[in-house]
Amino acid sequence: MAKKQKIFKPKARVPRGFRDRLGAELISEREMLARISAVYEAHGFDPLETPALEYTDALGKFLPDVDRPNEGVFSLTDDDDQWMSLRYDLTAPLARFVAENYDGLPKPFRRYQVGPVWRNEKPGPGRFRQFTQCDADTVGAPAPYADAEMCMLFADVIEAAGISTDDFFIRVSNRKIVDGLFEKIALDGEADAQTRLTVMRSMDKFDRLGAEGVALLLGPGRKDASGDFTDGAGLDDQRIETVLSFLASGPESSKRDTLDVIAEILGDTKSGEVGLDELIGIKASAPDFETRPILFDCSVIRGLEYYTGPVFEAELTFEAKDDKGRPVQFGSVGGGGRYDGLVKRFKGVEVPAVGISVGISRLLTALEYKQEAAPAAQGPVVVLALEKDRMATYQTMAAELRNAGVRAEVYLGGSNFAKQLKYADKRAAPVAVIQGEDERTKGEITIKDLVLGAALSKNIEDNKEWREDQPAQFTAPRSGLVDAVKKTLARHG
Amino acid sequence: MAKKQKIFKPKARVPRGFRDRLGAELISEREMLARISAVYEAHGFDPLETPALEYTDALGKFLPDVDRPNEGVFSLTDDDDQWMSLRYDLTAPLARFVAENYDGLPKPFRRYQVGPVWRNEKPGPGRFRQFTQCDADTVGAPAPYADAEMCMLFADVIEAAGISTDDFFIRVSNRKIVDGLFEKIALDGEADAQTRLTVMRSMDKFDRLGAEGVALLLGPGRKDASGDFTDGAGLDDQRIETVLSFLASGPESSKRDTLDVIAEILGDTKSGEVGLDELIGIKASAPDFETRPILFDCSVIRGLEYYTGPVFEAELTFEAKDDKGRPVQFGSVGGGGRYDGLVKRFKGVEVPAVGISVGISRLLTALEYKQEAAPAAQGPVVVLALEKDRMATYQTMAAELRNAGVRAEVYLGGSNFAKQLKYADKRAAPVAVIQGEDERTKGEITIKDLVLGAALSKNIEDNKEWREDQPAQFTAPRSGLVDAVKKTLARHG
Repeated sequence: MAKKQKIFKPKARVPRGFRDRLGAELISEREMLARISAVYEAHGFDPLETPALEYTDALGKFLPDVDRPNEGVFSLTDDDDQWMSLRYDLTAPLARFVAENYDGLPKPFRRYQVGPVWRNEKPGPGRFRQFTQCDADTVGAPAPYADAEMCMLFADVIEAAGISTDDFFIRVSNRKIVDGLFEKIALDGEADAQTRLTVMRSMDKFDRLGAEGVALLLGPGRKDASGDFTDGAGLDDQRIETVLSFLASGPESSKRDTLDVIAEILGDTKSGEVGLDELIGIKASAPDFETRPILFDCSVIRGLEYYTGPVFEAELTFEAKDDKGRPVQFGSVGGGGRYDGLVKRFKGVEVPAVGISVGISRLLTALEYKQEAAPAAQGPVVVLALEKDRMATYQTMAAELRNAGVRAEVYLGGSNFAKQLKYADKRAAPVAVIQGEDERTKGEITIKDLVLGAALSKNIEDNKEWREDQPAQFTAPRSGLVDAVKKTLARHG
Repeated sequence: MAKKQKIFKPKARVPRGFRDRLGAELISEREMLARISAVYEAHGFDPLETPALEYTDALGKFLPDVDRPNEGVFSLTDDDDQWMSLRYDLTAPLARFVAENYDGLPKPFRRYQVGPVWRNEKPGPGRFRQFTQCDADTVGAPAPYADAEMCMLFADVIEAAGISTDDFFIRVSNRKIVDGLFEKIALDGEADAQTRLTVMRSMDKFDRLGAEGVALLLGPGRKDASGDFTDGAGLDDQRIETVLSFLASGPESSKRDTLDVIAEILGDTKSGEVGLDELIGIKASAPDFETRPILFDCSVIRGLEYYTGPVFEAELTFEAKDDKGRPVQFGSVGGGGRYDGLVKRFKGVEVPAVGISVGISRLLTALEYKQEAAPAAQGPVVVLALEKDRMATYQTMAAELRNAGVRAEVYLGGSNFAKQLKYADKRAAPVAVIQGEDERTKGEITIKDLVLGAALSKNIEDNKEWREDQPAQFTAPRSGLVDAVKKTLARHG
């Protein structure tokens, strides 16, 4: 303790790939999550919270056969030498939770979970190593009833997030239909696994590259705009034709057409038949299916080593422009599907499960674009503190405003007037309340409309009349504080 | 890939010292945090989110001079060999954030943060290695104005959490006053550091052991009920007398008395005078100080190596009984204080700061005790699914109920009637909606009041009349679904 050390001065820096978030962004996210959670709860889903850390072996992908299971996840050892990892999604912890508490849970078991997940990946622009996920899953209910419910819930949730039903679709396909396609083009052998993967990767690019681009990827390969060449799957023309007609069966076709077209293409394959039956079952179990923003679209390809049946993808369809005026395609804002094998890792038996995961940060970005001139987050009303021995009276003013529902704070730094106004500006305060000695002796306050003040200082034209009508600064009796502030706030909606 | 392996079947278990939380507990916590966040925001505090991981050297206590900084925190190395740790509180990340973004922030800077923190400690009953913290801090504002605001905010927050102002106090003391006490009893030398620590630990036990017990700890030492002996600080009688009078100056005295008594005891010491001035300044800067649940109490001792000025503690004062009828003392549900040195680690200069941390889980427990017969969380209305080919009509019923604001779900398992009712029971469903073939052909539904049903099955007396008036099961026209369910729910408030 008494030993003197050289003082170590660390550099203050957020860890690489992580970020801090402050103010408006967090409030928008919280409000969106509240709206989504309310929908989940209304549908009978209960909230679940699992810890950030799980035993690494329970997370699945990362078997404890390496000294340091640190690929993709953040891992550490507990003091009893067991490896733990920060969860990389909310589904693996759900599987662990269900397996651990299986007998005590109502079945089917509906839960939703909101929280951060962590990926130990190379950070990149817009790619963070911690982000929020928002999932709902039903465990213990077989297809197609729970799948139908999940589609409808997905649509309800995207709508609750703030997207109009004209501006998105839930696209639905089925892993088994893709299996049927592989049967059809005789690519369902064990030796064809690698080719199937290449074919699926190519199919996944249908919305971006179109039929022509995908045809190249399915066949001889494709050179992109930058000159890079991607090897093709080497299919012959007839098979390519079949795959393309499969992809084109939706979403431009009507809902009824899609299933009919698919039936024509795959009807006599075993997997195709089962998959089609499940989709027909979804349609039959979902009320008003035809009028809802739900489409069958067999070009939806999602993590196929994981899903075992129907898959969903929420896609935004409105056109937006970025800050340089260029059109922006949002595409997917979430996905999900049926995975009957996940709990099996623990239990040894298959437990049917189906779920969705909502892409919160993409939805927030989409809403920002959508509300073309979103109002900037408003700071608090700032009560200036010009006479430091009168602090209690300023605090009383702020408390009066808060009691009337107005966000308000007292400036707590030094007494320099200009500095206080600069602070109010930095806080994006809409109004400053001022009571110096002059005002105090007269029993008055000065109200400064900072929004109007900023607008007027930008506007060089003389709009004298309007200025007199709605002055950027006026005095009011102290007893009229709340009225005067509210009136001023009301000027700006 | 083709290599066959023995299938590894992990045991599903939550990591040691961690826990899962489901349903009602999470909803209560979320609602409390929403109320508290609203108060923080109304006072001009902006939400901040920092990542779960920080560089270990930035966390402060854990300098990178050991190979594996794993004491007390969970640590791991990034792929560039930098040590990172899961945050153990929200203050150290705040200090890092402020130091990193100092020039761009408005000053004073008010922020609040809600989120999990992690402690790598031996798990024990009721002690978890992950828990929620909820902090507000003002950085860049010197005493006493920001301290006064923090006391009032603390009271507002505890009230917003659901505790009546009659049932708690914010106890306020000052680290400098304790320094004054040490001056007074000539224990302020560098060589007395260890004795000061022992004295402070003893003082901290005043509310539990009373004057007699603390006197032993300050003097010769004390044997507790189990026979364990604790060494004393070895003070003489006169010094013990001074410390005891200091401790007894509050909270039983009135607010004015406390400061007068302290002034009498310490008035001529340098630190005591500064500390008293700060407390007087707090009182002068807080409107209606006398009528608020705020007390000066010099027996409040909090992590003194960290705080540099005023300290606060929120203490619940109501009497509660545990489930065995024994009285329960809740004591502290949060604390805080001024710490002017924390940002200095990075910046080299002192940055004044003051903050509070609210003990969410203790507050939730207190509320449970307080609302003696808190209503159990209500499950959703369950629509039974007796004819599987009619799933869409059941989903329509559930959707109608949700549109009317009623939480509702369709049973998605098998078609066994008894099993469906058992499920509804396990879900704590208040009402089951039943439409079998009979009801369907008549255009009717059956409403089963599960709350009343459970009550009646417990009640052996014949209360036939009431039963006829409010039957536990009745039929209604399908078109009257929402009315019938709402009427039934209204029976039970």
